[in-house]
Amino acid sequence: MKKALAIDVGGTKIYNAVINEKGEMVTDVEKHSTPYDLEEIKKIFKSIIEKYENEADVIAFSTAGAVNNENTMVIGSTGNLVKGYNTIEFDKLSSKPVFVENDANAAAWAEHILGASKGMPNSIMLTLGTGVGGGIILNNKLYKGKSGAAGEMHFKMYPDKRRKCTCGSYDCFEIYTSGTGLKKTAEEMLHSESVTTYDVIEGLNAGDEKMTAIFNKWQNDILAGIIGLGNLFDPDCFVFSGSMAQFIDTEYLEKSANEEIITTPTKVLKATTGNYAGMIGAALLALGVK
Amino acid sequence: MKKALAIDVGGTKIYNAVINEKGEMVTDVEKHSTPYDLEEIKKIFKSIIEKYENEADVIAFSTAGAVNNENTMVIGSTGNLVKGYNTIEFDKLSSKPVFVENDANAAAWAEHILGASKGMPNSIMLTLGTGVGGGIILNNKLYKGKSGAAGEMHFKMYPDKRRKCTCGSYDCFEIYTSGTGLKKTAEEMLHSESVTTYDVIEGLNAGDEKMTAIFNKWQNDILAGIIGLGNLFDPDCFVFSGSMAQFIDTEYLEKSANEEIITTPTKVLKATTGNYAGMIGAALLALGVK
Repeated sequence: MKKALAIDVGGTKIYNAVINEKGEMVTDVEKHSTPYDLEEIKKIFKSIIEKYENEADVIAFSTAGAVNNENTMVIGSTGNLVKGYNTIEFDKLSSKPVFVENDANAAAWAEHILGASKGMPNSIMLTLGTGVGGGIILNNKLYKGKSGAAGEMHFKMYPDKRRKCTCGSYDCFEIYTSGTGLKKTAEEMLHSESVTTYDVIEGLNAGDEKMTAIFNKWQNDILAGIIGLGNLFDPDCFVFSGSMAQFIDTEYLEKSANEEIITTPTKVLKATTGNYAGMIGAALLALGVK
Repeated sequence: MKKALAIDVGGTKIYNAVINEKGEMVTDVEKHSTPYDLEEIKKIFKSIIEKYENEADVIAFSTAGAVNNENTMVIGSTGNLVKGYNTIEFDKLSSKPVFVENDANAAAWAEHILGASKGMPNSIMLTLGTGVGGGIILNNKLYKGKSGAAGEMHFKMYPDKRRKCTCGSYDCFEIYTSGTGLKKTAEEMLHSESVTTYDVIEGLNAGDEKMTAIFNKWQNDILAGIIGLGNLFDPDCFVFSGSMAQFIDTEYLEKSANEEIITTPTKVLKATTGNYAGMIGAALLALGVK
């Protein structure tokens, strides 16, 4: 069975493992802190590749940032990664074939092959963390758009509110529905800057009225977003992952969304492939598993 | 060269013509009023088909309403058409093969093969009329979603404004950016219900400040929408058609959208295949022209 050396590059951590065509890890997962220095990042990549490339047929990167259609480089937005990250020529890091994909896209593929959206041709993955990642599977293929950057969850929710988004623009879905978005909604509703997402979740669990109202506002912004995505894409399902996904009520979201969506009903699910979905998906894509 | 009998079914008019594989009309265009009676509509279909089916290899319908993935029936929303329209079994109307597609989808295909988006794999067509139609071409194919209804331009612009949309929900792109949307925006900004879209356009052309502000608000809602669609789909271009498209400033929209879109730049174009784009596109799709 063919195997990929999978490397997941996030804003704070780099993970790696060797993964086979079934999506199974055949080595332990190694973890490194992501250095905020371009040369140091490259050094880590080289050390991982030197150590494992003989055990793998391909090298598969799952990375923050939009990735080009040739799956060789990061283009445009590089998330929280160091300046110059988009100059790395991933395909020159090994004598083995190297494949790069955006982490949310890779995670969407892992879910499509092995997880919650298995067997469904059209699915939209939303990764709710500090930011919001998006991965779109259409007709059983990862949809990339003209440049490879499709699936950016930056569509305007409230074009007149002027809440500054991480993308440089204003009022995007991401800045209302990410963890950061929940904090900002709490700040606005409480007129206080000291509130955290943790405070909101703790208050929600304790039955606090204000915190519940804040949480509901945040969750209803997610709902408003998936209603629109449902009408645009007519998907079989939405799959939620990321650190904030554990708090959402998928039953509520599915029922409420389907009351408004004018196409046929869609499903709202939580991801099942776990924290290493990015690595697994990148490995499956690199190995050509469909 | 193969030919299709193309029939375009709108809320007020039914058009028909025989069209060849080059998208050329080989008969004159005939026009009927759309009766608000199911049996009368069927009678018109039958009379057109009896008259022309011997001249054509296939029958191609372009119709209001979402069409299923088998291209045989209208599903869900039927726009302004009579109740029961979605019970018509189009495929039983002729002994020749019958193909049905949504009018905005068909128009998008006409533009993709012959018009503004020719040669571009990924394009989004927006038909601005009384309502807003959408047609999405991805990887050189019409994107239909799980049920055939994808491309509905009902994503929320202002989820807290509660402007009632024709789809039964609130605050959709359509109800801000259609002709109806322009009238509603004018009503709100002028605190008057007697204002028409014609008044706004006339005022705009005469340099009236208030009317110009109303028009700009409407156009900036279109802008906000295409920024989001640009980030989601990373398309090569947007193509605008419909009676309201003549008034938009595509140069302004393209420049402003690209300042905010985080993927690579997209184009904003006007449709070039004319008023019969729906018929032409349906004919090309039915004839398998790619």
